[in-house]
Amino acid sequence: MKLEHIGIAVKSLEVSDDLFSKLLGKENYKQETVGSESVKTSFYKVGESKLELLEATNSESTIAKYLDKNREGVHHLAFSVENIFEEIKRLQTAGFQFISTEPKEGADNKLVVFLHPKSTNGVLVEICQEKN
Amino acid sequence: MKLEHIGIAVKSLEVSDDLFSKLLGKENYKQETVGSESVKTSFYKVGESKLELLEATNSESTIAKYLDKNREGVHHLAFSVENIFEEIKRLQTAGFQFISTEPKEGADNKLVVFLHPKSTNGVLVEICQEKN
Repeated sequence: MKLEHIGIAVKSLEVSDDLFSKLLGKENYKQETVGSESVKTSFYKVGESKLELLEATNSESTIAKYLDKNREGVHHLAFSVENIFEEIKRLQTAGFQFISTEPKEGADNKLVVFLHPKSTNGVLVEICQEKN
Repeated sequence: MKLEHIGIAVKSLEVSDDLFSKLLGKENYKQETVGSESVKTSFYKVGESKLELLEATNSESTIAKYLDKNREGVHHLAFSVENIFEEIKRLQTAGFQFISTEPKEGADNKLVVFLHPKSTNGVLVEICQEKN
């Protein structure tokens, strides 16, 4: 299990790309829109991990709903695994709750599921696997 | 610049160590109390990064004050650099504000400074350097 990326909810990618490129001393390496999630993302490499800035593309986006209730900031931590189905079974056996146990397509060529933050100390945890 | 660790504020290390060892499928590799910060920490290796669970040891701790206002969850992101003094200068020139520009001793044999989250999209950013 590796820390694949940290998702950060932002109001404006334009503003935050400027900020994070100055902070990290490098430009983003890609932007990608995930229509099914209604988000536009911007990715930065930091060592073997990534920062993923997330901007809502409409008011139904989970990021728009998150920013209705919370300030901008860290939204989720994503851990990559070799086999997402085995990992879901392992975590269910260990007593973790999932928002959904059915992997769906996320940004960056990944299958993703989310654990319910009630079962993970308030941290929204994504488990992801590179798609073959 | 690498993602050195993610600091997670928790109410009880006993409860959260149980939770995160199940989540990550491994035990913590150390606990360390930082008297000057009034925190007890617990560290987990995740690839080249770490998770640092933070429990307050008294009501004056920054973690106690954080948990008075916020739920348990991600408290800060720490990026490691080779030379913290050069990095402070670079970030000041780029317009970032610091909580203090004077590095102090943190957990895990580090010199640390924190950027003000108002200048970093609500993300509390720690810059750290391994002490020689």
